[in-house]
Amino acid sequence: MMQTLSIRDRQRLNLAPLQVPDRLLLGPGPSNAHPAVLHAMSLSPVGHLDPAFLALMGEIQSLLRYVWQTENAVTFAISGTGTAAMEATIANSVEPGDGVLVGVAGYFGNRLVDMAGRYGGDVKTIAKPWGQVFSLEELRSALETHHPAILALVHAETSTGARQPMEGVGELCRQYGCLLLIDTVTSLGGVPIFLDEWGVDLAYSCSQKGLGCSPGASPFTMSDRALEKLAQRKTKVANWYLDVNLLGKYWGAEHTYHHTAPINLYYGLREALRLVAEEGLVACWQRHQTNVEYLWQQLAELGLSLHVEKEFRLPTLTTVCIPDGVDGKAIARQLLTEHNIEIGGGLGELAGKVWRVGLMGYNSKPESCDRLIAALKQVM
Amino acid sequence: MMQTLSIRDRQRLNLAPLQVPDRLLLGPGPSNAHPAVLHAMSLSPVGHLDPAFLALMGEIQSLLRYVWQTENAVTFAISGTGTAAMEATIANSVEPGDGVLVGVAGYFGNRLVDMAGRYGGDVKTIAKPWGQVFSLEELRSALETHHPAILALVHAETSTGARQPMEGVGELCRQYGCLLLIDTVTSLGGVPIFLDEWGVDLAYSCSQKGLGCSPGASPFTMSDRALEKLAQRKTKVANWYLDVNLLGKYWGAEHTYHHTAPINLYYGLREALRLVAEEGLVACWQRHQTNVEYLWQQLAELGLSLHVEKEFRLPTLTTVCIPDGVDGKAIARQLLTEHNIEIGGGLGELAGKVWRVGLMGYNSKPESCDRLIAALKQVM
Repeated sequence: MMQTLSIRDRQRLNLAPLQVPDRLLLGPGPSNAHPAVLHAMSLSPVGHLDPAFLALMGEIQSLLRYVWQTENAVTFAISGTGTAAMEATIANSVEPGDGVLVGVAGYFGNRLVDMAGRYGGDVKTIAKPWGQVFSLEELRSALETHHPAILALVHAETSTGARQPMEGVGELCRQYGCLLLIDTVTSLGGVPIFLDEWGVDLAYSCSQKGLGCSPGASPFTMSDRALEKLAQRKTKVANWYLDVNLLGKYWGAEHTYHHTAPINLYYGLREALRLVAEEGLVACWQRHQTNVEYLWQQLAELGLSLHVEKEFRLPTLTTVCIPDGVDGKAIARQLLTEHNIEIGGGLGELAGKVWRVGLMGYNSKPESCDRLIAALKQVM
Repeated sequence: MMQTLSIRDRQRLNLAPLQVPDRLLLGPGPSNAHPAVLHAMSLSPVGHLDPAFLALMGEIQSLLRYVWQTENAVTFAISGTGTAAMEATIANSVEPGDGVLVGVAGYFGNRLVDMAGRYGGDVKTIAKPWGQVFSLEELRSALETHHPAILALVHAETSTGARQPMEGVGELCRQYGCLLLIDTVTSLGGVPIFLDEWGVDLAYSCSQKGLGCSPGASPFTMSDRALEKLAQRKTKVANWYLDVNLLGKYWGAEHTYHHTAPINLYYGLREALRLVAEEGLVACWQRHQTNVEYLWQQLAELGLSLHVEKEFRLPTLTTVCIPDGVDGKAIARQLLTEHNIEIGGGLGELAGKVWRVGLMGYNSKPESCDRLIAALKQVM
């Protein structure tokens, strides 16, 4: 018929229908998605400009404002995983030559440094040992030294399990005339966040942690101050897929086609957000806190110590010190293969030193903790 | 407990569980996903570094090579929709100052122009009226004039329904020392493609058309010639999320963490590719051709004419001329609201002039055509 060339079959695998192991995901994410989310993701897709889908996008926007406690008009999902939403905040705020001050106390601080550099930022850093946080005085002093256009901080460092206090940081940023950009990947839905009260100008997150969704559609928000900076750019945003000027017209009243949204993931995200709203934000935060304290207590009873000082520990993710003489990787492998439980290893400076244990979203419940502790008792 | 600030409930919607209309998607995409794909997407996620998931990623890579007929080592999915995969080809091949020649005969040619400019390309275009294609002589003459580093063409123009013949273009590109980049968003799985035979160096596609998946995980491939250019860059790839140097280490033997993959979408993509392999590529192409010819015949019997000359018509997407005096938007709206059938309108130059009718992937079957024709008879 149509082709004269012959087909090569070397890469044509002959596979059985997909089967996947049933894991309990207690690593740094993804967590198990709520069954209602998985059901929503299996519904038949509609078009990305279907009135039913545009209504769903409106629901996502409202609910994201609720979980972030912001009234930012520009609040929507990026059609990629959390890293894409991170890049969206950088791409839309950093113009070549802009001073960007990044607080680095973990892996994701370093990622922000790399990204901001790629967009032409004049990047400076303040650093702390991994697992610690910055004081207001340290931030003030760094702002005084560098006078950046943007201060970027990680609210919840997924690599260390530390929570950066945000009270007062927004006021400092206004005093020094810079925008405040924060990473809430491992905090949204599980840790108190008050974006507007805190004076945050740009924030991003993911779907597969505190929100209990599957990964792939990632929360993004931008304040009016950040939009003003965007409006004053002399150059186009150096990223087409993540350009808020274009994305805003799809999510806004015009509903102008930009890209084909990942329809079924948006179904899942809408459902995950609906469930958080149904539970109530304070109840959801409280649940994460209660369950993680139960975990900490159980770990202490096993004689395990935690990497982060209690005051700054995340309720979503705990870094557990691997005891001397224990092969951390082997234990994690045994948990996975013998008990179907995933926990994470350390990243960067903490590689080989800690396990990372997440109790996030749907998985933040006493049963998760009990299963992990029982399994740990067997493998250690 | 933990927060002293009060919660604002203004954006806390009180929603019922998600329900979506059951549409037959016969627009330019998304198409309806195969039921096996939707089932796969509802399975519980595993971790992005789980051995079971890494094995699945390997399957995706092999099967993508099969459907594209390439042996490119760098062949994988981008964790975003087709536009992100488009941007990945540009971001990894264009360095500031590189000459980029783009063939523009539709909306997506223009998108390539915009994108390549954002990455600092010195962009030149050759243009044709929307719906037409370029001859080898026209391409040769443009290469002779501009001597670009990259020639970018749209194999299947989603805005016009035209198929750009690719035979001989790769030889021309070698003669003129440039890379060949092509858009196969509306061709992969539905239209014969022989990437290696054609000498294509960079290509991208999407999941929600010929492959019968849901949108959000998008095929990407890069030849050794394109990798050589990447290795010789003087600057970092100006996009962190799409940097093949980093992505290649996640998809390659190292399996180094880069981003949290959209797990459930990759489940769906693996399943969609498995089904194409099971059917066989030639059979799949033939099915698309047979069904679209049936559609063309039915449309002709309704007295409707088609925008693209038969030789260059895509089997996946047909542009139907809206008859004089007919309100195209109203007809499409009626099809959607009264018959649950989505078709697309025209974009750009063709806005108001054509409908776009897709028969792609799972939807390429006589029943789709019959339902559409029966509904058209009622609304016109």
